[in-house]
Parts: sequence; C-alpha cells; structure tokens
Amino acid sequence: MDPIRIGIVGLGKIARDQHIPAIRGNGNFDIAATVSPHSPPMDGIAHFATLEDLIENGPAVDAVALCTPPQVRYDIAVTALKTGMHVFLEKPPGATLAEVEALKDRADKVGTTLFASWHSRFAAGVAPARAWLSERTVKSAKIIWREDVRVWHPGQDWIWEPGGLGVFDPGINALSIITHILPRPIFLKDATLSLPANRAAPIAADIAFQDTAGAPVHMDLDWRQTGPQSWDIIVETDAGELKLSSGGAVITTPRGTEHNEDLEYAGLYARFANLIRGGRSDVDVAPLRLVADAFLRGRREAVEEFHD
Amino acid sequence: MDPIRIGIVGLGKIARDQHIPAIRGNGNFDIAATVSPHSPPMDGIAHFATLEDLIENGPAVDAVALCTPPQVRYDIAVTALKTGMHVFLEKPPGATLAEVEALKDRADKVGTTLFASWHSRFAAGVAPARAWLSERTVKSAKIIWREDVRVWHPGQDWIWEPGGLGVFDPGINALSIITHILPRPIFLKDATLSLPANRAAPIAADIAFQDTAGAPVHMDLDWRQTGPQSWDIIVETDAGELKLSSGGAVITTPRGTEHNEDLEYAGLYARFANLIRGGRSDVDVAPLRLVADAFLRGRREAVEEFHD
Repeated sequence: MDPIRIGIVGLGKIARDQHIPAIRGNGNFDIAATVSPHSPPMDGIAHFATLEDLIENGPAVDAVALCTPPQVRYDIAVTALKTGMHVFLEKPPGATLAEVEALKDRADKVGTTLFASWHSRFAAGVAPARAWLSERTVKSAKIIWREDVRVWHPGQDWIWEPGGLGVFDPGINALSIITHILPRPIFLKDATLSLPANRAAPIAADIAFQDTAGAPVHMDLDWRQTGPQSWDIIVETDAGELKLSSGGAVITTPRGTEHNEDLEYAGLYARFANLIRGGRSDVDVAPLRLVADAFLRGRREAVEEFHD
Repeated sequence: MDPIRIGIVGLGKIARDQHIPAIRGNGNFDIAATVSPHSPPMDGIAHFATLEDLIENGPAVDAVALCTPPQVRYDIAVTALKTGMHVFLEKPPGATLAEVEALKDRADKVGTTLFASWHSRFAAGVAPARAWLSERTVKSAKIIWREDVRVWHPGQDWIWEPGGLGVFDPGINALSIITHILPRPIFLKDATLSLPANRAAPIAADIAFQDTAGAPVHMDLDWRQTGPQSWDIIVETDAGELKLSSGGAVITTPRGTEHNEDLEYAGLYARFANLIRGGRSDVDVAPLRLVADAFLRGRREAVEEFHD
C-alpha cells in the first residue's frame, strides 16, 4: 500500500516531542510537509506558513495532523476536509462541542476520516484496565490528577484563555481514560471550579460524577502541586481494587502490577492509519462533553492569582 | 385508541399555566395524577408527594411530564423510564449534557418514548420561518432577547444556581428556534457572560456564533430590560429579511406579516402523543449544547449585584 502523505500543522512542543517521532516510526506514513506561521522549519521537510499555502504550493498531502491550540483548530480542519484530506485532531478536538459536531457532519459528507484523538486512552495500562473492569461491578472510583502547571505548561498563555480549559487540559486526559474503562457512562452531579483572580480558566476542580448505576466517581484536579505529581485512577469493584498510575501507564489489580512501554502516540497513529485504510471516522466527544458540563454546572470560587 | 394516562411531576407556574390546559385540550391524554412534595393537590386529581409514591400507591400511568427544575429531573426521569413510562422533559432537558445522553440511551434500551421538548419551536411563526429559510441563502442573523427577570421569574432562586442557566433559561428558547429554522448548524466563536457579583449564573450575554457557511449570528441576551420587552430574531437573506417577533409568534417576510394563535404547548402535546403512538423518541440537545459551549468558551465579566 502507498504510504499516507501527512502534513503536520502546528510545530509546538507536542508536535516535536510526540507526533513526529510516532509518525516516523510508522511505515504507513510519510511526512510530506509541516505548517506553522512562527516555528522554524525542520531539516529536509517542506515547510509552509499556512495550510492554504501548502495546498496551493506544496507537495500532495493525503492527511493532516492538527497540533495547534484548540481555539484555531476548526477553521484549519474545515480547509483540510474541503480538499478531501483526512484529519487527526489533537485533544481536545475543538474549542466547543458544536464545532466538533459540525466537523463530524462535514467529514461524513466528504467521506474522509476524522479522528478525535485521546492519547491517554493508548497508555499501556488502559486496554487491560478496560478488559478487567468489563467483568466487574464498579462500586466507586477516584481520579487524582495533581501536577505542577509551571513544569508542564511553562508560559503557555493560550491554556488560560477562554477555550483553553485550564486544569481541564490535563484533566481531560483522565476523563478520556475513565470514560473508556468504566463499563457504564458517567455524568456530573456537582462541581467546584477554582479560578485564579487574574485568569479565565480554572487552576483546580473538585467534581462529583456518578455512573448510571449510581456508583460515585470523584475527581480531584489541581495544577498547584509541587513535589511528587499524581496521575492516578483508582476503581473499587466487587473483585477488589484496580489502580492506574503514571497517567495510565501502570496497572495494578489484585493479580499484581504491570509496567509496559509507553506507546501512546504510536498507538494513536496506528489507529489513524487503520481508520483511513478502513474509510471510517472516530469522534468520541464524551470527555469534552463532561468538561463542558463542569463549566455549565459547576460552582466557581475565586482563588489566589497565578503568575507564571 | 385508549387515552394515554399521564402524570404531571412538578406543579409550579409552568405546569399550571401551560401543561395542564394543553393536556386537557388533547383527547389523546387523560391526567391520571399529579406529583409534588410541596404544592397543593388539584381538585379531583389524585396527588402524590413523590413519583415513587405514585408508582406504589397510585393509579396506572403510561407517561409523565416532568415540570420540575432541571437540577432534579434526571433521577425522576430514570425512575419513570425504569417502570416503562414515556417521559416528556420540560426544557432544558437536563442540568448537564451527559445526563441527557444517559437518559437517551436508557429510553432506547427500554423502548419507551423520551421527548426533550422545546416549546418555542411550536410558536406560530417558527414552522413558516423554517420553510421560508430552507430556500434562501442566509447572510447573517441577529437574536435580541431582552426581558425583565423580575417580571418573568420572580423569586425563582433555582434559576440563579449552578445548573439553572440564568439568562440562558429564556435564551435557550431563542437557541431552540434558531437551530430549528436556519438551514445550517451554528457554533460559537466568542462569548461574554455578565455575572452579578452575588450570583452563580449570568444576567446577560453577548455571543457571536457562525453557521457552517460562515454567516455570522449575533445573540444579545439581557435580563435587565425594563419597559418594552424584546424576543426577536432577524435573519438577512439573499431574498430579503425575515423577522420573528414576540418569541416566534409573529413572522414578517417581504411578503408581509402573519399573526397566528399561540399554540406552543398544544403543539408539544400533539407531538408527544405522536411520538408515543409511533414508538419513537425526540431528543435534540443542540440548544443545550450551545449553552454549554457558551459556559465553556465564554469570557466572564462581573457586573452589579442582583437582588430580587
């Protein structure tokens, strides 16, 4: 099969650290071009300031991976879908739910692949956790996602702007896991969002979800954690406790602990290639919908100003 | 055909002013019971404090209309669906999007009718507006929804609580119309929500939507309007202007103005009966999704305290 010629739009940290190595490691893809108005080009790869410029003047491209901030992703995705390209969306898939619906409709009509990626679902422990839980009764679950924003998002102002999600930018990773591993859907009962007085997005959140059988799922998100960081999900079942730690990489059940190699983005690109080859899309908005529900339904409290 | 025996849950203003007269005017329905923990019973109708009490001790009921505030609607809907009842949800259909999805799944599995009602879609001018616009190219649209909260929601504290939507409680009516009459979906580009310093929900909002062909749709919501009230939607097209006024009751196009009788709730119950007889559900979350997007993506500004 011919390789899929892919363009990478947005050349920030996530594109360089994750997308490019994963694409280079997958024989289904050839990197055809990169697009970024500000970032410098990469050695040996054709580079364009905008996607329009690539379409008019660049090499042929079958697919694009959109690694820009979510606020500008919709217009770029429309341009790509209009020219018949397959589109890989970094998470979150958009700045609003309605724009993701609109993209989904458009991809369905054009007949190209739209992939709303959730990288944490490809962490090593997630598939085994989903399999183990599918045969158990869930009594309760806890999500503890506490990290230091200064370490992980230094100077990323867009993340604090409306549409940038604040602490839900990492928190949506936890939600992408929990909505994938629990046997039943969850929905929000109560939420408190903590907003720094000088910022538009929350720096912490405390959320009570429950599943449709009534099991409580508590989420503790905090970006003010210094020292040890936590990305843990603990599920209590009728057959004991399941723990996913290190963001889903490590799984512990009553049978023991498994550590496996981290292949999140490799998994995503394997999936993207399969979707393209199979002529299908995969757009699950459940994690973003839960975040929107938290903003819709949550109580806001003002906390200390945050300065980077 | 046997009449559908219906229970009314929640006996506030909307139930007494709208639901009961509409149900009484529709030969498909018999009012079998009312449910409310606080409100007094109505003459000649069996009354219960809770839906559980009605199920255990009351007459047989085929369907329920849920007229409670949205924050408590989910649990009541689940109880009803579990016993095989058809469910009519007042707008908004829930306090969160995820709980509405969960109800939809449950109704699909049980095989009963779930109807997420949007009464403004049954205003007299809405169906003709939709028909007229279906043959036109939309250039832009404007929604002006300005009313006096003290007149329309006196002392309704739940409306200011998280999940109560604030000015989006009337605003979602406008959104239910615009998503129904425009030929293309819209999504949010930018929003400013004005929150009184002492309240959890917005008293005003200024929102820029656009449709998927790029036409701008501007929404001006305000609950601080004294004097004349405005519930207007104006759509500019290639064939001139369409105006819906009085909340959708009056339509004006270049052909002239039509006033028709207000039959919103009569229309809703005709639709509910059709859905039940046809074994179908109708759950369109688009208006609530746009509100969630506004909360997710909107910039918040603090305004003067509001006291009832």
